[in-house]
Amino acid sequence: MDKLTGFEAFDEVERLIVVAAHPDDLETMCAGTIYRLAQKGIKVFSVNCTLGDIGTQEPDFTRPVLASTRLAETEAAARILGIEQTYNLGHHDGELVASLELRAQIARLYRITGADTLWTFDPFWTGQIHPDHRAAGQAALDAYMPSKMPLYRPEQLNEPGACLGCLEKVFFFSTAREPEIFVDVTAQYKTKLAACVAHRSQFPKGEESLEWMKVLDQKSGEAIDTTFAETFKSIRVW
Amino acid sequence: MDKLTGFEAFDEVERLIVVAAHPDDLETMCAGTIYRLAQKGIKVFSVNCTLGDIGTQEPDFTRPVLASTRLAETEAAARILGIEQTYNLGHHDGELVASLELRAQIARLYRITGADTLWTFDPFWTGQIHPDHRAAGQAALDAYMPSKMPLYRPEQLNEPGACLGCLEKVFFFSTAREPEIFVDVTAQYKTKLAACVAHRSQFPKGEESLEWMKVLDQKSGEAIDTTFAETFKSIRVW
Amino acid sequence: MDKLTGFEAFDEVERLIVVAAHPDDLETMCAGTIYRLAQKGIKVFSVNCTLGDIGTQEPDFTRPVLASTRLAETEAAARILGIEQTYNLGHHDGELVASLELRAQIARLYRITGADTLWTFDPFWTGQIHPDHRAAGQAALDAYMPSKMPLYRPEQLNEPGACLGCLEKVFFFSTAREPEIFVDVTAQYKTKLAACVAHRSQFPKGEESLEWMKVLDQKSGEAIDTTFAETFKSIRVW
Amino acid sequence: MDKLTGFEAFDEVERLIVVAAHPDDLETMCAGTIYRLAQKGIKVFSVNCTLGDIGTQEPDFTRPVLASTRLAETEAAARILGIEQTYNLGHHDGELVASLELRAQIARLYRITGADTLWTFDPFWTGQIHPDHRAAGQAALDAYMPSKMPLYRPEQLNEPGACLGCLEKVFFFSTAREPEIFVDVTAQYKTKLAACVAHRSQFPKGEESLEWMKVLDQKSGEAIDTTFAETFKSIRVW
Amino acid sequence: MDKLTGFEAFDEVERLIVVAAHPDDLETMCAGTIYRLAQKGIKVFSVNCTLGDIGTQEPDFTRPVLASTRLAETEAAARILGIEQTYNLGHHDGELVASLELRAQIARLYRITGADTLWTFDPFWTGQIHPDHRAAGQAALDAYMPSKMPLYRPEQLNEPGACLGCLEKVFFFSTAREPEIFVDVTAQYKTKLAACVAHRSQFPKGEESLEWMKVLDQKSGEAIDTTFAETFKSIRVW
Amino acid sequence: MDKLTGFEAFDEVERLIVVAAHPDDLETMCAGTIYRLAQKGIKVFSVNCTLGDIGTQEPDFTRPVLASTRLAETEAAARILGIEQTYNLGHHDGELVASLELRAQIARLYRITGADTLWTFDPFWTGQIHPDHRAAGQAALDAYMPSKMPLYRPEQLNEPGACLGCLEKVFFFSTAREPEIFVDVTAQYKTKLAACVAHRSQFPKGEESLEWMKVLDQKSGEAIDTTFAETFKSIRVW
Repeated sequence: MDKLTGFEAFDEVERLIVVAAHPDDLETMCAGTIYRLAQKGIKVFSVNCTLGDIGTQEPDFTRPVLASTRLAETEAAARILGIEQTYNLGHHDGELVASLELRAQIARLYRITGADTLWTFDPFWTGQIHPDHRAAGQAALDAYMPSKMPLYRPEQLNEPGACLGCLEKVFFFSTAREPEIFVDVTAQYKTKLAACVAHRSQFPKGEESLEWMKVLDQKSGEAIDTTFAETFKSIRVW
Repeated sequence: MDKLTGFEAFDEVERLIVVAAHPDDLETMCAGTIYRLAQKGIKVFSVNCTLGDIGTQEPDFTRPVLASTRLAETEAAARILGIEQTYNLGHHDGELVASLELRAQIARLYRITGADTLWTFDPFWTGQIHPDHRAAGQAALDAYMPSKMPLYRPEQLNEPGACLGCLEKVFFFSTAREPEIFVDVTAQYKTKLAACVAHRSQFPKGEESLEWMKVLDQKSGEAIDTTFAETFKSIRVW
Repeated sequence: MDKLTGFEAFDEVERLIVVAAHPDDLETMCAGTIYRLAQKGIKVFSVNCTLGDIGTQEPDFTRPVLASTRLAETEAAARILGIEQTYNLGHHDGELVASLELRAQIARLYRITGADTLWTFDPFWTGQIHPDHRAAGQAALDAYMPSKMPLYRPEQLNEPGACLGCLEKVFFFSTAREPEIFVDVTAQYKTKLAACVAHRSQFPKGEESLEWMKVLDQKSGEAIDTTFAETFKSIRVW
Repeated sequence: MDKLTGFEAFDEVERLIVVAAHPDDLETMCAGTIYRLAQKGIKVFSVNCTLGDIGTQEPDFTRPVLASTRLAETEAAARILGIEQTYNLGHHDGELVASLELRAQIARLYRITGADTLWTFDPFWTGQIHPDHRAAGQAALDAYMPSKMPLYRPEQLNEPGACLGCLEKVFFFSTAREPEIFVDVTAQYKTKLAACVAHRSQFPKGEESLEWMKVLDQKSGEAIDTTFAETFKSIRVW
Repeated sequence: MDKLTGFEAFDEVERLIVVAAHPDDLETMCAGTIYRLAQKGIKVFSVNCTLGDIGTQEPDFTRPVLASTRLAETEAAARILGIEQTYNLGHHDGELVASLELRAQIARLYRITGADTLWTFDPFWTGQIHPDHRAAGQAALDAYMPSKMPLYRPEQLNEPGACLGCLEKVFFFSTAREPEIFVDVTAQYKTKLAACVAHRSQFPKGEESLEWMKVLDQKSGEAIDTTFAETFKSIRVW
Repeated sequence: MDKLTGFEAFDEVERLIVVAAHPDDLETMCAGTIYRLAQKGIKVFSVNCTLGDIGTQEPDFTRPVLASTRLAETEAAARILGIEQTYNLGHHDGELVASLELRAQIARLYRITGADTLWTFDPFWTGQIHPDHRAAGQAALDAYMPSKMPLYRPEQLNEPGACLGCLEKVFFFSTAREPEIFVDVTAQYKTKLAACVAHRSQFPKGEESLEWMKVLDQKSGEAIDTTFAETFKSIRVW
């Protein structure tokens, strides 16, 4: 694996949209890089497709209460990271489907955020065992093309500030399909941990619940001789 | 309209299941009669098909928070009325569909509650303008037949206490299609109002927000020369 | 209820298609009239939308075995009644949906049988508690219009002998919505019973299991001063 | 049938939305009354749910060419009648389904037109044999309630000029379910015919192809002692 | 391709669930290994998603009769192999879809069998041309995660003996995507052939119809210097 | 990448069916090879799954008008290339789904064309960003198996000239997943360009709009030391 690049892969980003499946996906997988971008003044828009409403082993949660909790945790984490705005598409956790409706919901966000860059789950990674992750990535990728066509869901273009989809770059996270971008997030790691810990319902013991993530990020760090790194893969779009 | 009957129409009920669409449907439409039944020792099971999660004009609610609030209000009202158990089927408000999935969810409840009597919305009333009401009534009626057949969703019969559907009587509420049962609920009206007021998110001014209901119940009361009545229509099943 | 008519309502029928939901629907509801028509040389085509594969209380049937049994029973009954051909659309019992696919399946049969007359369940009868009956009737009615349009599923018109839909008359059975056609089937009743009894899986005690039907047909018979009658309702089509 | 009313039933209308299924539905069923309203300065918005793309017996049309033709005919007719704006929802003719997607498309139009009054097909008329007509009427009625709730498809409220659904009155056309409004359109009949004839693909012989409509309108006219009338039925909404 | 492992890959298996698409998939692809496991006392649960009801070139089968036949053949083969229990999910052959419903059906079986190990089709193998195989493998993999969450289809957990999903290992069969497990089944081959031949409807000439399978298994055998082998690929789950 | 083959890969083709997503897919991706085959007398059948009805940046097109235009352009291109017949499956551009309905539509064409060879999009190429391309390829591949089974959609076999699916070879185009067939189309390039330019709505500046294609084909040409080449990948079927 040669020709690795680092943070400079995102030099031209001005408006970034991140399409994830559950509250805490963005945080655990790319909070460090997001924080670096936000610090540079880049606008970051966070999209969670599901409410995360089965994400607990605690028997005393109802699904709506869990969903409410996780929406609040998402806002708290977003404030820590400097995220411009968060969106939740309201689907049920564990049952996300890359439907035409989800595609249209995501295309709308490409149009109203005017994002130039997309990050999402790699829908093609054959090690991805979470169906919601695959569905989110697939729908996000599939929304790319139609979002650029004026006759696709034209009412979306009426919303204030909306424009034709103008994404120019697409990157995948959560992939072992030969990622080629390794971003050093050592200096941001404390902030990443804080954003993750804001998801208290997921990590009830705080940092202690996040050992697995540190191990992953350390392993990525080794590839570029640093302590912690996050990884990405680009896909050529046209 | 002759041959009206009253509370005696429910003399043989031992286990009643009520299938409604939203939190507060049961309370506003039949809480008085339910309270009379519960006082007699009848087991009453309450089913709401949706979360009621668009039911507000207040702009500061998110849908999951509203849903959580309404689940809690439903429990409070159920305690006032002496309802045995409440179920919420988790569908989104304003988008209930009488799908095969909803049918199966309801059939399961017929089987595990062992109810002998069903109350639900009249799916055939041509004045019904709320699509969720129609969908709830339709699915509840459509679940009647299959619930009695052992080869329909047989796994439901494995649950503890489950039996083949044993509904024997079906009644509709919320119908102007010549209801023939008028139940005097004058003595229960204070309790009915309390159960309704428990839905604070819906009736923010308490009893004052329920004038419309009192008018309806008074008009029904006139038909049997009492102050307040609730009305029902039976459908012959086989 | 005046202006009743009798068997003459079907004087102009040459090719009749009957769309039912389950094996034994046609037989119990209109076998007498069908036999009268078949005796006259009318071609009768029988369509069952479902396999009838939950139709038993016997725990030792699997669904495919029950379906196989009922297909065979349908053929036996058809031979007794002189039915030209039977079709089964393969849907699961208890879960029939008036989908576009079902509509297309039925429209195809209108086109390849060249039927001039349709009999089906009354989808509008508010006493109909079996969802499959309503779905069959609805889909059969909804297929009427499109079957007449060349641009609707045009490949159907390629099949040998197929023509544009040429239904001219539509009648409903299984309705208490003021049926106005009462057909005397007293002379055919023995044959009707034989056709029903051919559905041994449904009527394991033979004629004894069919007392309910005899009661219904006798009650219909009273309206026209005969022993047994079957009833129908016409709907104006254009 | 007493207590008939006439054109005064629409005295309070200021913004009218008409939801039909096919190009030419609005024109043949209510063009006279629409023209009367438009002459008074009422804003009329016309919605066709389908493209009308199987509506021909001519074998040399493809579906897209037929659709294009009918869109143009709709515009021509709208100019004759003084209709403010036409919308086509793009569904295929003969296959309209009262889906959640159609409901949302229609709710959006309630919100962006700010209509106070809805006219649509009577979804409950048991003589309605065209499935598209029933689907259009059902979806239009089912969109009424959700369109008034801020948490239902909230993005629709971002469009310029959009407001919460503010429909106050709903009327059905194409119904024999005891219509109680009979509007004299004798003085407008020439214009009605012109608007219909603009649908050349449907009425290739011009007025001669419209004899059936004249018969219907004359029959309605008889009820109020005039030459031509159009009929409507109101439904109470809340 | 180094680091091949053999039967020891399954050393820790105690309860194995095999999710296939059609009767005879399990037998032709892994009967040898299953027999070895069953001989060791491992509980093996067999799941077929479809009825296999288009699986014949014989024109005299109806679909239900073919389905019935294949269910019986499956039981016969299961007895030969020592399989604990078989399940058939009732879907139609040639039309299996990795729907949420199928996912839930499979998750339920993970929960009520208490399986620790899953074998299924590799949904990611790009040489897989049978859509049912891909759908079965996809749904089986996608059911893994939700089956472990208490708020996912919680009613499944009420069934006697049911527990939260406790799968710990997942393996794919029918894959050329670098399988790394080669199990010597030479000693079990006679039994494997017997189990396959039990599917008489599929292999009407008995062993002669199974030459293709022997060729495949021999080719796999060559990789580990034995006569016959079956191959698997593991996927890391968490 | 060794063992490249050329045009001889298609030596045995007699009847070729090409399943694409949009008008102009076939032309830009394989018109040269198709023209070579047609010149040899091979029958070529072209299938477009969608109408291509969002394929423009021009704001003055309606979707039906664009669709009509593109159907005509497809016919013009087909005449240039010597294509036997074109089919359009009528789906909306940007929203193609590999549904069971699409599978059946394509299987029908395998059966009525009697094609021995299929070309379609590679559904497994992880660089494919257009969802319609993936859907077309997936559905075309998934139709292969069922088309060969008599009990799958048996009515299709009634059409004149229809036979059981007899595809023997499947090839993918539009793939960077190690294509191994490189066809020299230098001598056919003028014709390829003419067929592409026939899609005037897509390439308003004629050949100038097709520079990107020439670059691709030149790059493919380099691999076999010629000016222009088109590439394919075979998949083993059974």
